[in-house]
Amino acid sequence: MARRTGTRTILLENRPVIISRASVVGKKEGEGPLGKCFDVVSEDTTFGEKTWEKSESRMQAAALSAALRRAGLGADAIDIIFAGDLLNQCIGSSFGLRDSGIPFAGIYGACSTMSESIALASLFVESGAARRAAALTSSHFCSAERQYRLPLEYGGQRPQSAQWTVTGSGCVILAGEGGGPRVEAITFGRLTDYGVCDAGNMGAAMAPAAADTLLAYFRDTGRKPDSFGLIATGDLGYVGSRLLKKLLAARGAELGGNYADCGLMIYDRAAQDVHSGGSGCGCSASVLCSKLLGDMESGRLGDMLFVATGALMSPTSIQQGESIPSVAHLVHIIPPAR
Amino acid sequence: MARRTGTRTILLENRPVIISRASVVGKKEGEGPLGKCFDVVSEDTTFGEKTWEKSESRMQAAALSAALRRAGLGADAIDIIFAGDLLNQCIGSSFGLRDSGIPFAGIYGACSTMSESIALASLFVESGAARRAAALTSSHFCSAERQYRLPLEYGGQRPQSAQWTVTGSGCVILAGEGGGPRVEAITFGRLTDYGVCDAGNMGAAMAPAAADTLLAYFRDTGRKPDSFGLIATGDLGYVGSRLLKKLLAARGAELGGNYADCGLMIYDRAAQDVHSGGSGCGCSASVLCSKLLGDMESGRLGDMLFVATGALMSPTSIQQGESIPSVAHLVHIIPPAR
Repeated sequence: MARRTGTRTILLENRPVIISRASVVGKKEGEGPLGKCFDVVSEDTTFGEKTWEKSESRMQAAALSAALRRAGLGADAIDIIFAGDLLNQCIGSSFGLRDSGIPFAGIYGACSTMSESIALASLFVESGAARRAAALTSSHFCSAERQYRLPLEYGGQRPQSAQWTVTGSGCVILAGEGGGPRVEAITFGRLTDYGVCDAGNMGAAMAPAAADTLLAYFRDTGRKPDSFGLIATGDLGYVGSRLLKKLLAARGAELGGNYADCGLMIYDRAAQDVHSGGSGCGCSASVLCSKLLGDMESGRLGDMLFVATGALMSPTSIQQGESIPSVAHLVHIIPPAR
Repeated sequence: MARRTGTRTILLENRPVIISRASVVGKKEGEGPLGKCFDVVSEDTTFGEKTWEKSESRMQAAALSAALRRAGLGADAIDIIFAGDLLNQCIGSSFGLRDSGIPFAGIYGACSTMSESIALASLFVESGAARRAAALTSSHFCSAERQYRLPLEYGGQRPQSAQWTVTGSGCVILAGEGGGPRVEAITFGRLTDYGVCDAGNMGAAMAPAAADTLLAYFRDTGRKPDSFGLIATGDLGYVGSRLLKKLLAARGAELGGNYADCGLMIYDRAAQDVHSGGSGCGCSASVLCSKLLGDMESGRLGDMLFVATGALMSPTSIQQGESIPSVAHLVHIIPPAR
């Protein structure tokens, strides 16, 4: 059974196991510091499709296939899949999974999707509602740019606070038993909005959400930031992760050398011209499903707080002068049982 | 604990209770056959806001407030809320709930959102992950038309198979104990796609999804269609509900007089010029949270299969020549314990 502790944290007493994972990325991500960690690096970012949206769907299908293959399972072994993405009406997921035959629960958490989907999948396994559940998301630089910002052909200039949407997808499969990292606790985020209206500075909009969720988790469990092997945020980037440190320090929770942001891990900021770092659902998903879970499986990493952050605005809300509400969901992952 | 039966159905042994519900609709819905059943009917479909998107957010906030008020609860009594809508990036939900302070899990199921959110909220209560959980969704005719189809000012002509997006919102609150209808089982839908490409005929696109989920439920539980007080689909409309009957009959499951579609209940089709009937997340949500749960509370209705259906396409996918994948989630609701 799940058990609540404090005001917002849910402990999973059976500790669902991440029995498989897979990551699929594009060319630029393959050229970054984590290039060797990904399962699939495609030199062709169209993934063989005629539109960027179909490319993104293809990437999700590939991530699911790779995760199933690693686990030696067929799609019929998965009782439910939680998936979503950044595209309008989440078509990356609905079209990517259309042929899978797996019961499908669509979610929308923007770039927080990977932690939201893992949290839901974990709870389904914990409660007996699913024997195995999958969590999946993606983003694609080209589909995101034209939908959220400007057509690529326009060649618009990006501010230094802007981030580069990762072309990537990540998938995990959870089960009640097996070898692999385990999910010990989850904390769902609240909507926070500090009034940031600049769609070119998502890190600033999302940092307060990460701070709120982390503070809730620390308060609920009595644990301190320095007691984890790693605290990884999803895609705050350079600007947002500095703001997160300041926000937490002001509340007495200092983040130290065990803090990292997936958006700062996936690219070489100086050499790859990504300004404030990587972003997108696929950023935290592909980093988690390659480097982070890989390090945990091999014993190089102890326990981890994985906190993906999402900015829940739309181009329409920005045009209507609205600020950017954000959310961050936390998943506490511990190493495999030895 | 949750317990699986058959291949896809999840039985909730503690039977989470729908302790509260609320419905908020616009003027046209208030003039329909169910007008007297809704909690709030607004004569002003702007809901006092300057844009239709903000009107929709206002409607969601009003539905949550009304449901909390009916239960005599504050927002801090709700451990998690599952919400989504039809707007790009689900801004009806993220902006509508921005000030609520309730942990927020965004979902995207298009018009299947009400059954998806109730299913997730029920499982959270069942498993002990939440003491109380809310499920909420909305749609607004004016925001949906301009986003999915044509600007209202254009005055485009609608085919007879088209449906009218309901301006409405519905919210339920679930808890482990209390008086009210109870959730006995849930069945998550699979993505189905019979190749329908006509965005003016959503009922045809969604009917196969409803058929697939209902057949799975009947097979998993051994129950027959005539053994329920009501089988209610979300918004198949006139065209889609006829197709559903045919699809089920061909598989040996005849739907009889206990079958109804929320999209055919909410308007007087002849008098209100809605062609094939109502649609939108708010259609099934507002009908469930008014007439259907009301009838069950008062003893006029026995148990019910509530099957909201969603078409998971986007205007972009339609423009790219894609067909319309759909999904339907089922919730089996039984009367209050006596």
